[in-house]
Amino acid sequence: MTDLLALTEQLCAVPSVSGEERALADVVEARLREFAGALEIIRVGHNVVARTQRGASTRIVLGGHLDTVPANDNATPRVDGDTLHGLGSADMKGGLAVLLVLAEALAHGDESRDVTLIFYEGEEVADEHNGLRHLFADRPDLVAGDMAVLLEPTGGWIEAGCQGTIHVRVAFDGARAHSARPWMGVNAVHRAAPMLARLAAHEAPTIDVDGLAYRESLQVVRVNAGIANNVVPDRCEIVVNRRYAPVCSHVDAIADTLALFADADSAEVISDSPAAAPNLTHPLVAELIAAGNLDVRPKLGWTDVARFTQHGIAAVNFGPGDPELAHTAGERVERADLDHCLRVLSKFVTA
Amino acid sequence: MTDLLALTEQLCAVPSVSGEERALADVVEARLREFAGALEIIRVGHNVVARTQRGASTRIVLGGHLDTVPANDNATPRVDGDTLHGLGSADMKGGLAVLLVLAEALAHGDESRDVTLIFYEGEEVADEHNGLRHLFADRPDLVAGDMAVLLEPTGGWIEAGCQGTIHVRVAFDGARAHSARPWMGVNAVHRAAPMLARLAAHEAPTIDVDGLAYRESLQVVRVNAGIANNVVPDRCEIVVNRRYAPVCSHVDAIADTLALFADADSAEVISDSPAAAPNLTHPLVAELIAAGNLDVRPKLGWTDVARFTQHGIAAVNFGPGDPELAHTAGERVERADLDHCLRVLSKFVTA
Repeated sequence: MTDLLALTEQLCAVPSVSGEERALADVVEARLREFAGALEIIRVGHNVVARTQRGASTRIVLGGHLDTVPANDNATPRVDGDTLHGLGSADMKGGLAVLLVLAEALAHGDESRDVTLIFYEGEEVADEHNGLRHLFADRPDLVAGDMAVLLEPTGGWIEAGCQGTIHVRVAFDGARAHSARPWMGVNAVHRAAPMLARLAAHEAPTIDVDGLAYRESLQVVRVNAGIANNVVPDRCEIVVNRRYAPVCSHVDAIADTLALFADADSAEVISDSPAAAPNLTHPLVAELIAAGNLDVRPKLGWTDVARFTQHGIAAVNFGPGDPELAHTAGERVERADLDHCLRVLSKFVTA
Repeated sequence: MTDLLALTEQLCAVPSVSGEERALADVVEARLREFAGALEIIRVGHNVVARTQRGASTRIVLGGHLDTVPANDNATPRVDGDTLHGLGSADMKGGLAVLLVLAEALAHGDESRDVTLIFYEGEEVADEHNGLRHLFADRPDLVAGDMAVLLEPTGGWIEAGCQGTIHVRVAFDGARAHSARPWMGVNAVHRAAPMLARLAAHEAPTIDVDGLAYRESLQVVRVNAGIANNVVPDRCEIVVNRRYAPVCSHVDAIADTLALFADADSAEVISDSPAAAPNLTHPLVAELIAAGNLDVRPKLGWTDVARFTQHGIAAVNFGPGDPELAHTAGERVERADLDHCLRVLSKFVTA
């Protein structure tokens, strides 16, 4: 059996920061083409899809993104015993390795279900770059199915649903003046300061949905102001990210969020993605949980499960790696976690 | 008599943004060299000094900087009746024009006082570029005198003393985390927000010195934070500019200023210049005021009068142009203001 830790290391050794997925897509495609007799292989941009076409009554979609965030002094993968450290090890080349080994099993197996494997680009950046978005728009046949699993790092739990995310660019205007005579102008930072203090003091609630506790958040992620050290700044731009529980409509969530910035000169939604309900009562989701006797918790970060849900496909997150280490310098994945994920998914798709 | 408005326009037509003073220094030097028989002309870098050497008991130093701030849609000078609009018209090529016409008078006159005219580079940028600083360090003989007048725009008033200025870079640290799980990190902007609100709400006092009201100020001039829209920022950098009245020592002013940032992770003075007392009781200052029957008000912005004062030379600001329009798109100078300044200084140096 393929060494999943070693395969994950090989994938991590191919850099694939968002926008630079070509090389990794090539590696994945080449490996999948070894099974081209048994699997249909389709490449669209730097998205690679492999699927069985047995005519089964149920199709399971398994997906993972090829791209990573920028390195954080962890660009080079490093194996230490049964642990792989490095960028992408958890988010989510461990998951990609599981999918590649599954492809081999699918090519030689006789699963009763059809399976689609999707390796896609542009997940860690603005939604316009998201490969899954483009497949849903241009090749809906490639992403169709009865249920989807995204191999985002969940530490082997089912992470159900996902919170919605809204980014707002908030601006305060002012009027420039020499900083020795500030009363001739208006300081845009000084105007913004009470709102910044209010956002910093905001305590986001934790909301129960289907017995799962969704902890919301509201974070100032960028502030930029200043022209020169002797000039009263006439513009202060702030980006705020709100994450909200799958309990209200996306339209309502946007309206509630914008209401926080009523005293700003402008507040513009620059990116947003709806929340997804947990879907725990869906038969295939329930079956996956049972197949692995898996623990369930809510997904707090946004993932493409929301996209599948929007398109009427029940979806959950289930993959190797600690989600709390994603996007940190300490990102890593354990061999046991990889093996567990492969075992559960193999059992599920062959049911 | 030379048309001062036309001469100012000629000087404004030679761009001289800080760092690019060579061309204007060449123009000034060439014009001064017409009087090289009567005046000693010395060029050091892009600083030009012209002085009489009559062996008089009193030497008056008159100075102006060659550089301007960057253009603000006002790079091309434009005369409208008796008003010259454009970058540098007030700050301070009108003053330079007055000095150039004075040079001609000095070359042909028999003033009882020696006079030194200084045209210098690098005043509008960091102090390390200041031509006067370099002359004080390398050629103190060229800047020596009993009293100095800087022809900074004062609208024909005496602007006495100057406030001190202190720039502090303040930083708050945090710990990065995904913005969907901010409790795994520490948001540096959220930590900084209470201080920003406090600074914005701060009401700087107005302080009486020798009957002059010095209005202090405290301004946030820059804020920068943010790595990516999905990442809790781990660093928030803020630059604050404080202007303080000439009433306490510079060391005390720095200590008082740094005390404002006690809750920050670091607070570093990145530039500072001491205040200068008004010097109104100095005999030569009093004589200048009497010569023009001039009104007196405090100088709020920092100018090189502080440098002369530090070196034991009483100094005041007196020049054509509205100081409140300096560094704005609406910068301009009036013919009457130029003529008045020339008349007062001619009377003063020939006393």
